[in-house]
Order: sequence, then structure tokens, then C-alpha cells
Amino acid sequence: MADEVRPLFWNDGGLQVLDQRLLPYAVRHIQCSSPEDVAAAIKAMNVRGAPAIGVAAAFGMAMAIEETSKASEAGIRSRIDHAAALLLESRPTAVNLRWAVERMQSRAAALMASGGMDPARLRAQLISEAALILDEDIAGNRRIGQFGQQLLPSNSTVLTHCNAGALATAGYGTALGVVRAARDAGKHISVFADETRPFLQGARLTTWELQQEGIDVTLITDSTAGSFFQKGTFDAVIVGADRIAANGDTANKIGTFTLAVLADAHGVPFYVAAPWSTIDPRCKSGADIPIEERSAEEVTHTTGQDAEGTMHTVRTAPEGIHALHPAFDVTPARLITAIITDRGVLRPPFRISE
Amino acid sequence: MADEVRPLFWNDGGLQVLDQRLLPYAVRHIQCSSPEDVAAAIKAMNVRGAPAIGVAAAFGMAMAIEETSKASEAGIRSRIDHAAALLLESRPTAVNLRWAVERMQSRAAALMASGGMDPARLRAQLISEAALILDEDIAGNRRIGQFGQQLLPSNSTVLTHCNAGALATAGYGTALGVVRAARDAGKHISVFADETRPFLQGARLTTWELQQEGIDVTLITDSTAGSFFQKGTFDAVIVGADRIAANGDTANKIGTFTLAVLADAHGVPFYVAAPWSTIDPRCKSGADIPIEERSAEEVTHTTGQDAEGTMHTVRTAPEGIHALHPAFDVTPARLITAIITDRGVLRPPFRISE
Repeated sequence: MADEVRPLFWNDGGLQVLDQRLLPYAVRHIQCSSPEDVAAAIKAMNVRGAPAIGVAAAFGMAMAIEETSKASEAGIRSRIDHAAALLLESRPTAVNLRWAVERMQSRAAALMASGGMDPARLRAQLISEAALILDEDIAGNRRIGQFGQQLLPSNSTVLTHCNAGALATAGYGTALGVVRAARDAGKHISVFADETRPFLQGARLTTWELQQEGIDVTLITDSTAGSFFQKGTFDAVIVGADRIAANGDTANKIGTFTLAVLADAHGVPFYVAAPWSTIDPRCKSGADIPIEERSAEEVTHTTGQDAEGTMHTVRTAPEGIHALHPAFDVTPARLITAIITDRGVLRPPFRISE
Repeated sequence: MADEVRPLFWNDGGLQVLDQRLLPYAVRHIQCSSPEDVAAAIKAMNVRGAPAIGVAAAFGMAMAIEETSKASEAGIRSRIDHAAALLLESRPTAVNLRWAVERMQSRAAALMASGGMDPARLRAQLISEAALILDEDIAGNRRIGQFGQQLLPSNSTVLTHCNAGALATAGYGTALGVVRAARDAGKHISVFADETRPFLQGARLTTWELQQEGIDVTLITDSTAGSFFQKGTFDAVIVGADRIAANGDTANKIGTFTLAVLADAHGVPFYVAAPWSTIDPRCKSGADIPIEERSAEEVTHTTGQDAEGTMHTVRTAPEGIHALHPAFDVTPARLITAIITDRGVLRPPFRISE
């Protein structure tokens, strides 16, 4: 069942992270027991997707305080500050990370101000707060789905990029949450999934997630989308977001901008689906959004499984070739038909404040 | 030296085909000794690129006649017809294949009509004709380069897709021939190469070919091009072609259409470089061009080399996923700034006849 695709859950004194580097080949969890573990899992993209990164970071903050710690107030504050710095630098583009870290910092400060200085108790309260963020994320995604599905005709073919599904969130998904809600409303929805090079989130994750619950999905290479736009295949494009500026400019996985240009050229509506926590009013426009540059090796090498079930990382370019790997691009607001949030559907001109 | 990158040459009684499935990992040749061998090498994409396919097919036609054959006139005609049918069905989109097969059929008919019925002599004359096609292709590419380089400013960054280089032709290349000619004219040219999923001709072949002669090349994933258009990185897009209709509509490797839309949206000139033999006046428009559908497995699987030098084919999607793999798309003439041919530069409106 789709609703049971959960990339993150709290269990056994630690955060269980579904290892998305191993999907679709194996369903395995990594146990994160410290802010360091969580930061490493975010950086290595064992957990990815802006909302999921935010939820993971919230648990990372809670684990800054060890259960058996006898730390002083100053010691606790220092550990929280250290965890915040570590998590904030793990990935730069998704703003949900900063949003979650700051919310946990505020919550910790409030608890400590009201005298809650017992480490075990403080930790438990912070874990509750992180669990609340997780539950709120799922609830928010269901609202996004409800708002968004009303935009889809009853027989629709939707193009999506990367994975803005259950796996990218605490569960249910944003862009794929809209597809799920439309399906649950009795509509027939077909999905075309861009494979999303270089990390192949579309090929590995979106197809897997939709396959789990029998939603019709067709995999294409990223550059094939254009030819299906030309044929009139798509009724809508729906993507997620890593950060939305106050003017509606949206950073999302590299390749998103190209789809927006294609959608515009073919008169296809282009929707961004994201929780309110993805909006960053401190960024006036896309120019203010930091874009992560990842390693060239992720472009020149690909990982997969051979026919015997053995994983290999193979090089697909000559040695010593110069490659560039911006992990995100910015789609200007003028190419976005609507932004579907948990608070409702925003239409241009976008002027978003807290 | 670039000029020495030759995907095809005649030697030792057979056509030596540089195996482009093994590049850039190994430089190995396959010997083709019959039309069947050549058709198999075209189908499996050991040799690829519309002009190179045409040249290979010409040699395939010549090899229809065995040196030691004592065949009757009817027998020879039947072998030529059989070879033509076999080669024509090996790949459907590149029209240079049909052009070369028909030229060889005409040449054979003319030789036979003038009494040249000795098999060994007929074979030798047909091999000469195929070698002439090969030489003409290289000469034509140099002319394309001369015409095309005049369109490039002296410090240019050029985006290309797939491989329209020496490897796609008898030598020198079409799109990359323009880059070579500009370099030879003393201009500084940087190339951005789309990796070109799924077969990775850009990652494996274009980078390798340019690396051989020290031309500056940067590898990006296909969907990354949009973000560099947005940054104003490109002065021109230059691609090859597999078939050009009379109205200028151009079939080329899947993903080309998307670049044309991006170029149009950003005011970047979009050039097609191709020999005259790529033009098919029998196709009035792109709608008449047959588009090859290749196997889904080429989308769901990737081949490369591990750190120990062993080749692996790895699956990068869940088992049983539906995938589509059109190998080409059609760029409408209205998005093409100019078509650079060996007879000169064509500008819209294109109305091309024999």
C-alpha cells in the first residue's frame, strides 16, 4: 500500500531511514542514532526530498541530547547549536531543512526556558516534536492532494520529474500525493516518470513507489519528454520543490526548468506541489536560492544491479573528463501555472509572506 | 589527431568497423565480411550516426558479391536485391542508409548493363564505389565545417547532443566538423556535450573524440542543458541529423527537439549540420519520417566499466517497469536557424528539392 511507503520512522531509540540509494533493489533501513548519523544520511542521499530531509533533521536535532547525558544547561545548548550547524550544512538547497532545524531550536529554547532541563525528559519532548513534524507532513500532503486533484481531469496523463512522492516526504507525497488523491477520487491517472539523471530518482524511486500500488507508470529518459509534449500526451506536469521564493520562483531537481519551458511552449499546465515549509520568504526571488553543486562523479558513473543481483558502479564516460553537476535549477514564476500547498492553491502573481 | 578518428575503413578484404559500443573503454574493430555482418553491426549500433551508417551500408552492398562466386547474372541480381532489403530494414530513420543502398544498386545495374558480369571484377568496382562514398563523405564534412564555422564567433561555447562527430561519419564529423573547422580557423571553441541517454553517445563518444585532440569539452546530463541556457552559457546549438524533410523538419537523436525549444526560448541560434544525402525530398514534412522505437531495456539498463576495468550491464529501474524508447524526435523547421550542408547554408523557409 502506498500509504505505507514510509522513508522515515522512529523506532528502537533511533530514526529508521529507508536507504533510498538501494531502491528498487533492496528495502533496507539505516538506523540513525545521532545528529551526525542523520547529517551523513542526508549528505549521501540515503534520505532525500525536501520534506523528508526536514523531518529527518528534526529527529537529528532531538538526538542531540543523549538520554543518559548529565550535561549542564550550557552543555545542552552547545550540543543543540552544534547539531543545528552540522545539519544545516549537510545540503544547501532544500529550505525545509532550515525550517525544521529552526523549529526544533525554538522548541528546545522554550522547553528550557520553562525549566525543562532534565536531559532525558527534554530529549523525549523533542522527539515528540519531531514526530509531530512527521505527522503534520503527512497530513499536509493529504491536503495538498485534495487541493491538487481538483485540477486534474478524470482521465489524465501526468508528467513528473525526480521523486516528489511518499519517499520524498514523511509519506503520501506532494506531486505523487496529488496523483494518489485523484486516484482515490475515482479518476484514472497515468504517470510518465522522467528517469531523472544523474541520480535516477524517477527510474529507481517514482516507478517503484507507483508500482507498489498499481498506478500506471511509464518510464522515459529525461530528454524524451519533449517528444511526448509534441504528441500532446500530457494533461499536466506536476513536480515538487526544494525551495520557493517569495515571488514564486521555484528551485527543484535539475531538469525541472526544461519541463516548464516545454509545458509553456505546448500550453500544458505546470504545477508545483509543496508544503508551506518549502516557501522561503527570505528569498525574494530565485536568484537568492543557493544551488548545490554535487560531484562530477555522479554524472560520469552510474550504479545499478546486474542480472545476478550484484550491485556495480560503472563509469560511462572517458576518464578525466570535465563534468558539471548542478543538482537543482530554478523555474521562474512566470512559467508556473499554480503552486499547490497544504493551505490552498496559489496562482500568479505570487507574493508570498510568512 | 581528430582526422584520424575513423569509424570505418576497408582493409584485408573486409570492412573494419570501430566498435562504438566499447568506446571509450576499448578501441576495437569488428571485421564485417558480408551484408549480413554489416546489417547486424548497424542494428546493434556498433556503427551508428546517419552518414556512417550510409557508408557502412555501401560496403555491405559491395560485399553482396563474393570474390570467388561463379554466380549467374540472375544469381548476382538476387544477391544484390537481398543485401539491399536486409540493409534497408536494419534501421528505419536515417535516410543516408537508403541513399547509399540505392546509389550502390544503380552503380551495380550500370556496371552489369555494360557487360561487367565477372563477379570478382564487379565486386572490386563496387568496393571502389563504396570507397568513393566514404571519401566524398569526409570531403563533404570538411565543406560543412567551412560553411559552418563562419557562423561561430571567435570565442564560442557550443552545445551539442548525441555524437555528430568523426565517429558518426566516415571522418571529421558534421556538427563536430564545424567545431573542428572553427578551431582550425583559430577560434577558441568550448563544447558542452549532453550525455544523451539512453545510449550515452555524448558521454561515451563526443567527449572521447574531443578529448583525443584537446578540444575543451564539458559533460552534462541531458536535463542540465536548460539551466545553462538560463545562465546564457551557449552561443549556439549544433546538432547532426538522421533525416531532413523537404520543408526542413529534421529528425535527430531523441532530445534534440527539447534543445530546439530551449534555444528558441533563449534566443540562441540552433543549427543542423548534415550532408546533402541526409535530405529526403520524398518526405514533405517531419510527419512522413519513420521514427524507430528501440527496446525498453536500453532505458532500464546501462552499460559501463567498473574500477577494475570489467564491463557490466546494470539495471537502474524496478523489474517489470513499462518504458518507452523512441530513438529520435522531429524538430520542426520553424525552430531551426539554419541547416549547414556540404552545398552551403540553408536558411528558412526551407524548400528543398533534389
